[in-house]
Amino acid sequence: MELVIEDAKYFKSCVDAIVNLVDEGTFEISSEGVTLRTMDPSQIAMVDFSLPREAFAKLDCDAKRTVCVNLVDLNKILARSRPQDKLSIKLDEKESKLVLEFKGESKRHFKLPLLEGASALPREPKIVFDATLQMKGSAFKNMLHDAGLLSSHVILQADDGEFVVEAHGDSGDLRIETKKESMESMKLGAKSRAMFPFEYLDDMTRACPEDASVSLHLKSEAPVKLEYSIGKAKLVYYLAPRVESV
Amino acid sequence: MELVIEDAKYFKSCVDAIVNLVDEGTFEISSEGVTLRTMDPSQIAMVDFSLPREAFAKLDCDAKRTVCVNLVDLNKILARSRPQDKLSIKLDEKESKLVLEFKGESKRHFKLPLLEGASALPREPKIVFDATLQMKGSAFKNMLHDAGLLSSHVILQADDGEFVVEAHGDSGDLRIETKKESMESMKLGAKSRAMFPFEYLDDMTRACPEDASVSLHLKSEAPVKLEYSIGKAKLVYYLAPRVESV
Amino acid sequence: MELVIEDAKYFKSCVDAIVNLVDEGTFEISSEGVTLRTMDPSQIAMVDFSLPREAFAKLDCDAKRTVCVNLVDLNKILARSRPQDKLSIKLDEKESKLVLEFKGESKRHFKLPLLEGASALPREPKIVFDATLQMKGSAFKNMLHDAGLLSSHVILQADDGEFVVEAHGDSGDLRIETKKESMESMKLGAKSRAMFPFEYLDDMTRACPEDASVSLHLKSEAPVKLEYSIGKAKLVYYLAPRVESV
Repeated sequence: MELVIEDAKYFKSCVDAIVNLVDEGTFEISSEGVTLRTMDPSQIAMVDFSLPREAFAKLDCDAKRTVCVNLVDLNKILARSRPQDKLSIKLDEKESKLVLEFKGESKRHFKLPLLEGASALPREPKIVFDATLQMKGSAFKNMLHDAGLLSSHVILQADDGEFVVEAHGDSGDLRIETKKESMESMKLGAKSRAMFPFEYLDDMTRACPEDASVSLHLKSEAPVKLEYSIGKAKLVYYLAPRVESV
Repeated sequence: MELVIEDAKYFKSCVDAIVNLVDEGTFEISSEGVTLRTMDPSQIAMVDFSLPREAFAKLDCDAKRTVCVNLVDLNKILARSRPQDKLSIKLDEKESKLVLEFKGESKRHFKLPLLEGASALPREPKIVFDATLQMKGSAFKNMLHDAGLLSSHVILQADDGEFVVEAHGDSGDLRIETKKESMESMKLGAKSRAMFPFEYLDDMTRACPEDASVSLHLKSEAPVKLEYSIGKAKLVYYLAPRVESV
Repeated sequence: MELVIEDAKYFKSCVDAIVNLVDEGTFEISSEGVTLRTMDPSQIAMVDFSLPREAFAKLDCDAKRTVCVNLVDLNKILARSRPQDKLSIKLDEKESKLVLEFKGESKRHFKLPLLEGASALPREPKIVFDATLQMKGSAFKNMLHDAGLLSSHVILQADDGEFVVEAHGDSGDLRIETKKESMESMKLGAKSRAMFPFEYLDDMTRACPEDASVSLHLKSEAPVKLEYSIGKAKLVYYLAPRVESV
C-alpha cells in the first residue's frame, strides 16, 4: 500500500477537521480513496470524512485496509512538512507502524504506531430533516462565536423565511436573524428548532474554510447534520441536541 | 432612547479606555452626549469619559438617563462587530436590559442586563497643579514600560526644563530625562515630584492612541491628572500618589 | 571604560544566544573586544561567546575587566531599545553598577547591579572529533524540531556520506537522512554517533540566524561542538552526550 500526497499541508487541514473532535481514528483505505467515520468519545457527535482517489498523486491499494492511529500525533507530524515536501504514506506491517516519508533536501521518515481500532463502524443516522440551509463558512462561524460569548449552548432555528441563532446566559442574551435572501439557499418543510453544545459546533466548524459553503440540516429536537468540503475532501458531521429547559 | 454609532470598533476603543480601570460603570446619556465618571474599586484612580453628540450618527434622548452595565461584557460584544455593521443602542426598560443591535447581512441583537449603579458621582478633585506637560502617547507609554521592567512604582518629576521618569528595583535603576524642547509643551510653576503605581498608569494609558497627545498635570505629593482624546472622545484620569520612602 | 554600540537590537540578539543557556554570566572586556565563557548551571553545556573590537562604534578599555551581570535583566533592558537609539555601556564603580545609556529623543539610563562572578573560567574541552559537518541554521533547527516532537533526546550520527538525525519515543520514531551533497560540507574520519538532550540543542540554536551556517563536530559518545556566527559575534557551544540505552 502506498499513498502519495503532493501537498502535505492540505492533508493536515483535512485531519484537522477530524482531530478537533476525536483523538484517534480508523482510516479505511481502498482503491476508491480514504474514509473515516467515528463517534466522538462522549458519543454525541459523529464525523464522516472522505477523500477520493483524485486527491492523491498516487494511491496504490490492492485490498481494503483499515489503519487506526493517534490523530493528534499524526497531525503534529504533518505540521512539520516543509513547502517543497512530497509526502508518501506506507504501512510497515512487520513493525505494525504507519510510515510517513517526506522527501525534500533530506529524507525524513516518521513512524507512527498502529493502534487497535474499534471493530464496528458507527451507522449514519437516518433522519428526515425539515429544513436545509446553506451559507458561507465564515458567516456561520461568526454567528457561533457571537453565541459562544454568552452561553455554552446555542439554539438553531429555521422558521418562516429566516434562520435564527439564539444564546442565553447570565451576562446577556443574543438573537441573530438572517433572512432567506441573505443566505445561499434555504428549504423549509416545517419550523425546526433545537439546542446544541457550543463547543461541539465550534470543534466541527473550526477547520471549515472561511469561503466554503456550510450546509445545515435541521429538525426540531433532532440531531443537526452539518456538511462542508475542504478542497476535494468531504466532511459530514452529526451532533445530538440538548433538551431546552426554559 | 436610541444611540446609533457608525463605527462600533471605535466605540469599543473608547470603552477600552474605561474598562482597563473598572469592570462596571454608569453611563449618563443626555441630548448632549454620553459621559461616565467613576472611581476604580480601590478608590485610588478616577476616570472621566465624555463622548459628545457629534460622535453619534443619531442620538435620541429626551431626558437624561443613567445606564449601568458590566463593561467587560459590553466590550466583548462590541468586539464582535463586523466591518460593515452599524450599531444601534436602545433600552428595553420592561426587561431592564440594554439592547445592542448590529445591522449587516444578519440582524444581531445582544441584550445586556442593566445593573444597579452607584447613586453618587465621584467629585472631580480640585488641585492647583505646578507643572503641565504634553507629549506623544507613544513616547509616554514607552517611558512607562521602561520603568515597569524594574519596579511596580514610577516616579514622575518635572523640574527645570526637564521631565524625569524614575524607577528603582532589585534588578536595577532607571532614569529617563526628556528636555522641554523634546516635548510638545511644558509649563512649570514649581518643581513637582510624585510616585505612582505602574499598573494604574499602564491601565490608564493602554487605550491611548500612539500618536495622540497626552497631557500630564503634576504637583509634588499630589494626584496626577492625565488627559488624552480618542477621536472625539475625551478621557481624563486622576491617580493618587504613593509616599516615596527612600 | 566605555562601549558604544550603534545597534542595540543586534547586541540583544547576541545576548539571546547566551541567555538561552545561562541566567548570569561574566563578560571579559579588553581592548580586543568582549568575551564570555561559562557552563550552564547543570554543567553539561558550555557557551563561548566573543564579539571583536570591530563590532563596536567605540571601545575604550585601558585594562582588562570582568563584568558579571544578570543576563535576563540585561536582555529585558536591551529589548527596550528604540530604533534610533545609540547604546553606551559604562561602569559605575562607586555604586558597583553597569550603566546602559540609550540616547534618542530622551536620555535613558538603566543601571544594573554587578554580581560576584565565578572566579575561574571553564576550560575549553580538548576533543579530537571524527566528523565535521556544515549546514544552514534553518535546516538543522528544522531537524531538531522534528525530533523534539517525538522524544526529549536526539541522536546525531555521521556515517558514510550521510548525516542522520534520529529520535525514538512512545508516539513514534523519526529518522532524517541528509546526503553529503545536500549539506554545505562534510568531513568524515570515522562513523560518529551520540545522543543529546533535545532541550539543550534547542537552547543552543534558538538564536542562530536562519541563514547562518552551523558547524557540527561529532565523535561517538563524546560531546558535540556546535558553532555559528551572529554577524561579527562568534558562538561556540559544547554539549555532553547521554548514554544511549537501547
